[in-house]
Amino acid sequence: MDKYMKRAIELAIKGKGFTSPNPLVGAVIVKEDRIIGEGYHEYYGGPHAEVNAITNACEEVTGSTMYVTLEPCSHFGKTPPCAQLIIDKKIRKVIIGMKDPNPIVAGNGIKLLRDHGIEVIVGVLEEEIKKMNEIFIKYISTKLPFCILKTAMTLDGKIATSIGDSKWITNEKSREYVHEIRHQVSGIMVGIGTVLQDDPSLTTRLKDKESVDPVRIIVDTKCRIPLDSKVLNLNSNSRTIIVTTEKADRNKLELIKEKKAEIIITPLKNDQVDLEYLIQKLGEMEIDSILIEGGSTLNYSILKVGCVDKVISFIAPKIIGGENSKTPVGGAGIAYIKDSIELERIEVKMIEQDIMIEGYLGKEE
Amino acid sequence: MDKYMKRAIELAIKGKGFTSPNPLVGAVIVKEDRIIGEGYHEYYGGPHAEVNAITNACEEVTGSTMYVTLEPCSHFGKTPPCAQLIIDKKIRKVIIGMKDPNPIVAGNGIKLLRDHGIEVIVGVLEEEIKKMNEIFIKYISTKLPFCILKTAMTLDGKIATSIGDSKWITNEKSREYVHEIRHQVSGIMVGIGTVLQDDPSLTTRLKDKESVDPVRIIVDTKCRIPLDSKVLNLNSNSRTIIVTTEKADRNKLELIKEKKAEIIITPLKNDQVDLEYLIQKLGEMEIDSILIEGGSTLNYSILKVGCVDKVISFIAPKIIGGENSKTPVGGAGIAYIKDSIELERIEVKMIEQDIMIEGYLGKEE
Repeated sequence: MDKYMKRAIELAIKGKGFTSPNPLVGAVIVKEDRIIGEGYHEYYGGPHAEVNAITNACEEVTGSTMYVTLEPCSHFGKTPPCAQLIIDKKIRKVIIGMKDPNPIVAGNGIKLLRDHGIEVIVGVLEEEIKKMNEIFIKYISTKLPFCILKTAMTLDGKIATSIGDSKWITNEKSREYVHEIRHQVSGIMVGIGTVLQDDPSLTTRLKDKESVDPVRIIVDTKCRIPLDSKVLNLNSNSRTIIVTTEKADRNKLELIKEKKAEIIITPLKNDQVDLEYLIQKLGEMEIDSILIEGGSTLNYSILKVGCVDKVISFIAPKIIGGENSKTPVGGAGIAYIKDSIELERIEVKMIEQDIMIEGYLGKEE
Repeated sequence: MDKYMKRAIELAIKGKGFTSPNPLVGAVIVKEDRIIGEGYHEYYGGPHAEVNAITNACEEVTGSTMYVTLEPCSHFGKTPPCAQLIIDKKIRKVIIGMKDPNPIVAGNGIKLLRDHGIEVIVGVLEEEIKKMNEIFIKYISTKLPFCILKTAMTLDGKIATSIGDSKWITNEKSREYVHEIRHQVSGIMVGIGTVLQDDPSLTTRLKDKESVDPVRIIVDTKCRIPLDSKVLNLNSNSRTIIVTTEKADRNKLELIKEKKAEIIITPLKNDQVDLEYLIQKLGEMEIDSILIEGGSTLNYSILKVGCVDKVISFIAPKIIGGENSKTPVGGAGIAYIKDSIELERIEVKMIEQDIMIEGYLGKEE
């Protein structure tokens, strides 16, 4: 059973970066222990995995078993309901990785199948599938984007040297991996400090692979962004949003609009952009996921308001020292270790000699 | 072959913490694919592994094969030469993990065995054995102690919160592991800053196990150590050394001597204790290994003079923030990433949810 579900997961992952805000889904059709059809959800608005698997089948699917990572849908969305198609095609048995957390499906697909006498098994390799669709699960159930905080530091905790040099702390493979993440999220967020210091372009650059740029989100309370910043002068398949407050100069805002950037004005909170308000607003704009790429000040602020779901920390096996060198998370800081922000479900991976640590904030549901 | 050498390594490790400055050595005697004798070097000055294995053998060793992690000695030291004993006992074949780097052995043991018609194979599981004896190898070939820098920080690179709270960053198991390391080294070094801030006792506390305290070495340029510091008022099986300079008050030095602590006075270098001088001096005092447990200032200084051989970094999956919170390595810092101190042969281990990263400075010989 696991063998075919694993294959369905493999297929699902091929859609990474193209399905948002839809989930990654893969499907495999099996007859007499042979795969006769495979499919996955390839891009947002395109046919579902089940449809593709049935279409691609090299023989009659009647009487077969379908392995699908996510519960088949029961509603008319961009496409007709897959559960109905499975019934029509007389598939005998459906093995489902996980129930659809989307409130308008949530068991209805399973019920529909069972009502038509189809044998259904739910919950195969569920943990792996949940992880693969962590963005979708958070977004569909809360309408808030899944926020990933990414940091990169030396083994002595620095994101730059005493004079601000930061190119490059991590190795090439680690940086490529960050571009993979950029490709998979809808938005990328930095603070104005990072723009002023590094003037990044915040685009996705993948080797030998088509990629999607995330929406660039610049948190800039007083709208200090220089008009010649790269993010305001890009040739990109995605947009730039400047997030500011009433402290911004109105003329400056007009000039930014001329640059085709969008502007979000949030209320002031502690004299700064109200990050909670912003995250909710971005969710309403269908941005289902955000990669937060620093500045130690923004990192601290966003952690403090509790908007971070996951942390990905790259550690390079280098030491640079420096009493005043910047660290990944700054701000006022937490006074007592017992009150620290704790991460769970820690995973560690080596990327050549760099170490990548992933962890989640808050308990798994 | 590997099977018996693995067993010899297992035996050798039992001596950890008790053999210094001698190496860890294990030996297994095999006859017709059965182990007939086992032994290891149990404590400094005690019989060598080969002797113990022969003594413990449950039948005649004539014609047998001996697996021994290190080349049998050929000289009279605290005990008679093992190579001669092997010859006398008519062992037929000797399989050796690694050649003895001790200049007074260095191949002579192997030669003596071969000259007596014994078949000798050298270099089995050598890498593992070298790692196990990294302290011995450094010390025997340079007369300088093997220096391990140990740090413990949060995932955002802090060793204490903004108000200096540091209890506890890492989990209990990680802290136990540090006591295991303390047990295995001859000396432990901290800066006066750490004494003033934390007043540590720097002893080895192991659960359910006999342990040896390392020599406590306090680097204290101006001799600011309070006379009621724990390290000056311990009931310990080891001594305390205060390392200071001409900047120390002479009366204070007398009072420290009354506390039974030793004093080393080093020349001034950049107005501080001359660490290179100190490390050489400690080597002369037969301290073969030192665990450096911080203070970000001392850590930077000792790294800069190139006296660190290995770094062990514990990372707790916690975030505390704080622009001014201390990091593992402070000081002036290195200006450019390209000039950073790079670690090699990185190994990563999880200790419950903590991450332990080990790496070495400089190329392997």
